[in-house]
Amino acid sequence: MGKSNKPHRPKARLPKGMRDVGADEVRASAAMLSAIQSVYELYGFEPLETPAFEYTDALGKFLPDQDRPNEGVFSFQDDDDQWLSLRYDLTAPLARYVAEHYDGLPKPFRRYQMGPVWRNEKPGPGRYRQFTQFDADTVGTASVAADAEICMMAADCMERLGIPRGAYVIRVNNRKVLDGVLERIGIAPGDPAFDSQRMTVLRAIDKLDRLGPDAVRLLLGEGRKDDSGDYTKGAGLSPDQISPVMEFVATASDDPAEVLSRLGALVGDSSIGQQGVEELQTMASLFAAAGYASDRILLDPSVVRGLGYYTGPVYEAELTFETTDEEGETARFGSVGGGGRYDGLVQRFKGIEVPATGFSVGISRLYSALNELGKIQMNAVAAPVVVLVMDPDRLPDYQKMAFDLRSAGIRAEMYLGTSGMRAQMKYADRRGAPVVVIQGEDERARGEITIKDLVEGTRLSGEIEDNAEWRSGRPAQISVAEGELVAAVRQVLASHGN
Amino acid sequence: MGKSNKPHRPKARLPKGMRDVGADEVRASAAMLSAIQSVYELYGFEPLETPAFEYTDALGKFLPDQDRPNEGVFSFQDDDDQWLSLRYDLTAPLARYVAEHYDGLPKPFRRYQMGPVWRNEKPGPGRYRQFTQFDADTVGTASVAADAEICMMAADCMERLGIPRGAYVIRVNNRKVLDGVLERIGIAPGDPAFDSQRMTVLRAIDKLDRLGPDAVRLLLGEGRKDDSGDYTKGAGLSPDQISPVMEFVATASDDPAEVLSRLGALVGDSSIGQQGVEELQTMASLFAAAGYASDRILLDPSVVRGLGYYTGPVYEAELTFETTDEEGETARFGSVGGGGRYDGLVQRFKGIEVPATGFSVGISRLYSALNELGKIQMNAVAAPVVVLVMDPDRLPDYQKMAFDLRSAGIRAEMYLGTSGMRAQMKYADRRGAPVVVIQGEDERARGEITIKDLVEGTRLSGEIEDNAEWRSGRPAQISVAEGELVAAVRQVLASHGN
Repeated sequence: MGKSNKPHRPKARLPKGMRDVGADEVRASAAMLSAIQSVYELYGFEPLETPAFEYTDALGKFLPDQDRPNEGVFSFQDDDDQWLSLRYDLTAPLARYVAEHYDGLPKPFRRYQMGPVWRNEKPGPGRYRQFTQFDADTVGTASVAADAEICMMAADCMERLGIPRGAYVIRVNNRKVLDGVLERIGIAPGDPAFDSQRMTVLRAIDKLDRLGPDAVRLLLGEGRKDDSGDYTKGAGLSPDQISPVMEFVATASDDPAEVLSRLGALVGDSSIGQQGVEELQTMASLFAAAGYASDRILLDPSVVRGLGYYTGPVYEAELTFETTDEEGETARFGSVGGGGRYDGLVQRFKGIEVPATGFSVGISRLYSALNELGKIQMNAVAAPVVVLVMDPDRLPDYQKMAFDLRSAGIRAEMYLGTSGMRAQMKYADRRGAPVVVIQGEDERARGEITIKDLVEGTRLSGEIEDNAEWRSGRPAQISVAEGELVAAVRQVLASHGN
Repeated sequence: MGKSNKPHRPKARLPKGMRDVGADEVRASAAMLSAIQSVYELYGFEPLETPAFEYTDALGKFLPDQDRPNEGVFSFQDDDDQWLSLRYDLTAPLARYVAEHYDGLPKPFRRYQMGPVWRNEKPGPGRYRQFTQFDADTVGTASVAADAEICMMAADCMERLGIPRGAYVIRVNNRKVLDGVLERIGIAPGDPAFDSQRMTVLRAIDKLDRLGPDAVRLLLGEGRKDDSGDYTKGAGLSPDQISPVMEFVATASDDPAEVLSRLGALVGDSSIGQQGVEELQTMASLFAAAGYASDRILLDPSVVRGLGYYTGPVYEAELTFETTDEEGETARFGSVGGGGRYDGLVQRFKGIEVPATGFSVGISRLYSALNELGKIQMNAVAAPVVVLVMDPDRLPDYQKMAFDLRSAGIRAEMYLGTSGMRAQMKYADRRGAPVVVIQGEDERARGEITIKDLVEGTRLSGEIEDNAEWRSGRPAQISVAEGELVAAVRQVLASHGN
């Protein structure tokens, strides 16, 4: 790089797929995280923080080759040439942590973690390359009581966040039941010959919500041409094979006993299938004992999640209220989180199977949802009172006024620029200040301070047509003795409900 | 990469210089961040969150070359070949943000941001490559009232964190005063011929606290050999030049007027020096007006900070209590944060000077400090009550007990493993559970539940010598009717102050 006299001016811009998060969302997200955390804590989960990046091989991606160092993850080399990658979720670092500290951990081990994760993927509308997740996992037990507990905890989280009962549902399925159905139609899991066909079946089921049963039927069979004319190859199942699968995904019902009996019939004598039904049965009895009825937790065999990853119960937190999607169509808001059982967590490191189950909430998705529900209190923190600087030589006096307001717990700032009255009022307006505090020469001589109520002022200025009347009347403005500043400001704020 | 049948077992290990943060520190850090945030909010600062990485050129590092892509920062290439870097502080992303949104921002613009930053540096004891900072900056005003405000805010933060008055001090200096002194001794800033000499002078002053005045005097002159025999070359000042510098750094005093008058004499007719003294004077009058005496904010010309970066006021939050350092020597705890005025913030992007001043707190350093002060409440969150599983067929009953406890706001969990009584008690012990809840066959028949007080039990087991007496007495254990579970557990917890 040769030096040049012409200064290099980089363009100030965000990296592709990244975003800045503004004040309202930062505050709302913090409140959401704190609500979720209080529920996780109540259930006995303990916090853990792992670093932002891990050795690439520990994250479970293969060592990236030189031509394509980033395949879904952001990777870079340390100065000792070892590859590092930014975490793409919070589960892979948990696996590393558990494998590293296995003998010292209480088992089962319950931990929660929140934080950003990064995906090196093509960004799209509302799809960013950094986003925040909040996970809870129970490691070291095969008991589906752990899964049931997480489902109940997910329901509790929704309500603690202010989502009313009826506007959310935790949908629960078990992959072993699906495996049992697949075994019965002759494409048993474990037989690699059917691996790709089985994946296509799972992918088809996963589209049920979005495309409806007719489309899924086509995708299970020969294939489907969509509205745009694009053709998706099907799983190639015969009508005899398709029919149990379609029956399976349509078993959801408010009555768990009915779902379980239908599923029992569908899996027949498949041993893996029977095991899955038994696990669902156990979970259903735990839900019932604690009073979580199907308006909160619903057995729903159409839930697939994480193709080829989960090994037992899977669950999804869905918001059921209607919203308008990007294409202007009305649809359920959909998933804000989910998870399931994955028993291969630590196997990669230690060669032993350590069963685990976990749940992950997508925080920015949840923020959108709460926003639509009107549950985000915008400007939850009152904008500050602004003390104007009428005489630059009297900074200490103005600073003292701001100090007195703060000491009384009132958010306040002295104007710190060097501009005149007009610009200062514009600044206060931009800040959304409810009140400005003014002391010019005249007020000073009288030992008074002027308090201008900007909220009331804005309302009045909409009503008063006559500009002269407005100026002469000086509405929404009072003068008080210097010693009354704090009390008077507090009174004005109280009149606006702050 | 050829496929091999032998499974590749990656070693579960943290990347070099990284660490996992455990439950106590995660909780304590969250409490600290929340305390600091409440103070920043009170002063009218607004939160902002920028992403973890930026375009490398926007961060202000030159485009890394291929041989050495990481120089102090972690860098990697996007798929369009643009270089990205993990942020190494929170100021550089702020500069990008301000430059990008300059016209739309209220000016002055007050923002705070917390989050991890990353340094690609050699890790050492207590020195990690990822750590958390919490910054507040005021952008767009040259008024030192902004600096004064941040100093007062820093003092408020310390007290909100529980650090008693007298155990901390915010030390304030102004680089222009030092520049004035340097001008008077003939090595004026702005003259590139003296650049390196001036840096050596600054570096020498910065060592005053650690090495004392005699060593600094040597470093300002010919140089110094330390105890290990290593020689550090000095700035090469003459005795006549050294003496005003030594006077300068020793001007700290509880009486601001005295400091200012001594500094005035030292800078003489240097215009930059006089400007610096005036700025300190303004800040001192603002501190006085709001009642911040020198036990909280101290004018101290020995504060240097950030060689060649700051352009006006600089300030440092120092903890003054004594601690024992790594070498076993007693010393002041030292800095937990600091900052100052840097007027070149946005210049790199826009070519215009946007004055700014800011403060940064190092969160893990602060955690160590509060820990030493006994201000961190370890296990601030009570460990959960554990409901034992005495009969695997009765999971729903045990789950219901945990549910009832949680519904009453008591942190509780059902044991989720499959082991027997002995292992379950060991688990409860490991979790630090204050209470376990037991219902075996006998209790069930009587409609009772046994509540075992592990805290009291541990205390008693230390007192009772006779093992037989211990077993027969079953101390710290009560049986209650099933309906009394919650009330009885609450009573036991209350007896331990929970």
